[in-house]
Amino acid sequence: MATHSLFLLPGDGIGTEIMVEVEKLIAWTNAEGLTDFSTDSGLAGGAAYDKHGVAITDEDVAKAKAADAVIFGAVGGPKWDNAPYEHRPEAALLRLRKELAVFANLRPAICYPALASASSLKKELVEGLDILIVRELTGGVYFGEPKTITDLGNGQKRAVDTQVYETYEIDRIARVAFDLARTRGGKVHSADKKNVMKSGVLWDEVVRNVAKDYADVELHHILADNAAMQLVRTPKQFDVMVTDNLFGDILSDVAAMLTGSLGMLPSASLGAPDPVTGKRKAFYEPVHGSAPDIAGKGIANPIAMIASFAMALRYSFNMIELASQVENAIAAVLDDGLRTGDIAQDNCKTVGTEEMGAAILAKL
Amino acid sequence: MATHSLFLLPGDGIGTEIMVEVEKLIAWTNAEGLTDFSTDSGLAGGAAYDKHGVAITDEDVAKAKAADAVIFGAVGGPKWDNAPYEHRPEAALLRLRKELAVFANLRPAICYPALASASSLKKELVEGLDILIVRELTGGVYFGEPKTITDLGNGQKRAVDTQVYETYEIDRIARVAFDLARTRGGKVHSADKKNVMKSGVLWDEVVRNVAKDYADVELHHILADNAAMQLVRTPKQFDVMVTDNLFGDILSDVAAMLTGSLGMLPSASLGAPDPVTGKRKAFYEPVHGSAPDIAGKGIANPIAMIASFAMALRYSFNMIELASQVENAIAAVLDDGLRTGDIAQDNCKTVGTEEMGAAILAKL
Ligand SMILES: CC(C)[C@H](C(=O)O)[C@@H](O)C(=O)O
Ligand SMILES: CC(C)[C@H](C(=O)O)[C@@H](O)C(=O)O
Repeated sequence: MATHSLFLLPGDGIGTEIMVEVEKLIAWTNAEGLTDFSTDSGLAGGAAYDKHGVAITDEDVAKAKAADAVIFGAVGGPKWDNAPYEHRPEAALLRLRKELAVFANLRPAICYPALASASSLKKELVEGLDILIVRELTGGVYFGEPKTITDLGNGQKRAVDTQVYETYEIDRIARVAFDLARTRGGKVHSADKKNVMKSGVLWDEVVRNVAKDYADVELHHILADNAAMQLVRTPKQFDVMVTDNLFGDILSDVAAMLTGSLGMLPSASLGAPDPVTGKRKAFYEPVHGSAPDIAGKGIANPIAMIASFAMALRYSFNMIELASQVENAIAAVLDDGLRTGDIAQDNCKTVGTEEMGAAILAKL
Repeated sequence: MATHSLFLLPGDGIGTEIMVEVEKLIAWTNAEGLTDFSTDSGLAGGAAYDKHGVAITDEDVAKAKAADAVIFGAVGGPKWDNAPYEHRPEAALLRLRKELAVFANLRPAICYPALASASSLKKELVEGLDILIVRELTGGVYFGEPKTITDLGNGQKRAVDTQVYETYEIDRIARVAFDLARTRGGKVHSADKKNVMKSGVLWDEVVRNVAKDYADVELHHILADNAAMQLVRTPKQFDVMVTDNLFGDILSDVAAMLTGSLGMLPSASLGAPDPVTGKRKAFYEPVHGSAPDIAGKGIANPIAMIASFAMALRYSFNMIELASQVENAIAAVLDDGLRTGDIAQDNCKTVGTEEMGAAILAKL
């Protein structure tokens, strides 16, 4: 019997193409005896909707919950623009996050040296950039109730979304951020809009309380709008940034875009450790989306997906060395001058998804 | 009797210093017979709190409502970090916006040619940049109820903010955006998170409906997180961007920062035209804040404040020519190589607030 189980959800668009490269990697690490993974896979997003009329089936959610780690591609595309709201592709992602209770979304924004000049920012501002955005993922306006549209008559409707945070939710995500800061630059920026939002006031209060347990970590408060600005102005001032679900969505995208390496960035979403086994539910996915415009062409960049698998090795299975080997293989291939179309550069060779995947595997 | 009334609220920090330069300008245009402004001024933010224990007095709110235009500096600073929530400096701004009902916040992000190299982005990406963010300013999560923190006992609290939009609020801000797009590049991007928020679903539905009345304007939908990314990646793809209060707060700050000209950017907040007189309440303020770190040193950049006054000339008093003259004077002074500290450049002369104000006035 395999010791570790992976549940693969390639999703839509380029999700299916880049997942293939991870499957090859798994086959290889298993064959080499480096891992003992059993894998199963399911449908998510538009793919599930087309087949089952829902963004993800209860069965696949159950499988995701039972697995040691879920590896997720990407969902969505114009094809499903008119799907009913509750069955739109994104609903799969939101349901999985909530049911797996993976509240801590880790989004590293790293600038690969070979790609520093691909950033829209000046090279010296992003070279060596290494920010970790810690985004709260199971609360806030994404899930708060009421969340409704009411018909008021006379052609008028009222839409309501509700941002809700409780102390324990802020406390646990803050601890994740402080713990990670200890292993890195020792600095946490906490971003909120406490000048306008009550949830921001509570957010700040709880984060400051948690900080008392981490005297060795520097805490800075920053307003979310200013955080967005400062990310663009001088990104290297940041080490770890902790923020809520909605601000995290935007700020992590800004941070990712700064690096010039969007197609390269993985993410991990972790739950609380099980009180008995210590295991945490975990969900790994690239930061980029399903890129419907280039889907099916075999040109998508598989690196973020492969790097997400590396994060799984590190965070779910404690295979630190193998994780580093995969990450080094990615860097080595870039140093060799291989590029997919999204990061094409002069004097570099542009290759497709399969060739990029094979080149990384060949380095291992 | 003066034909037009201005109510000046310098606020805190550098707000008071940069307002002085606008006052000199008003004195000059009045003396030249170009304008016939009566001015009065009040206290807002920390300044009002220190004197009256509130962020703004009822009397000053009444004066703001009675004036033809309000010229606002900036509020806030660490001194008032522990002021009670309802009296924090920002409360003045929020109350004024709401009571004046200035729902349409126009935030131009223009890259002054002389400053293109001051941007953190590569020069060719921002040179000639001219984006107009149209932000909804009197609705959304800023004002929705409930907005509370509840003590749940056991050290737990629950904070709630509510995002609410009704059809008419979205309709009127969309019309402002489309009308402005007609006078510019003819393109509107509408940014929301309809994949997660019901208010986003309604936002998109209403904007699409309004678009039917503007067949000559191109409408693009964009998710707010992607909008933030795209602003960083290729900002010149945008002309007008319309979005809600919270996304507008963040996206307009990103857009402003891109230009390298943050200390230069004005904003206008406009109400609905009065059904009888056609006049709209109007509120003008720089995009930047009160910069407590440099307050009192006489080094703040007065340009955004002066440009805000120019916007008042244009939008409230239809003095298009004089507005352009002021804007041209700003550009001319920059071309002459004068800079305040925030935009200091090699081969340019760094001057203080007063000298910059005087140089602009001298060009008129
Ligand atoms: C697809 C969407 C629901 C999702 C989000 O808003 O969280 C995405 O933008 C992300 O950041 O993972
Ligand atoms: C000061 C603050 C309340 C305000 C806002 O959030 O609207 C500011 O950031 C702005 O953009 O004008």
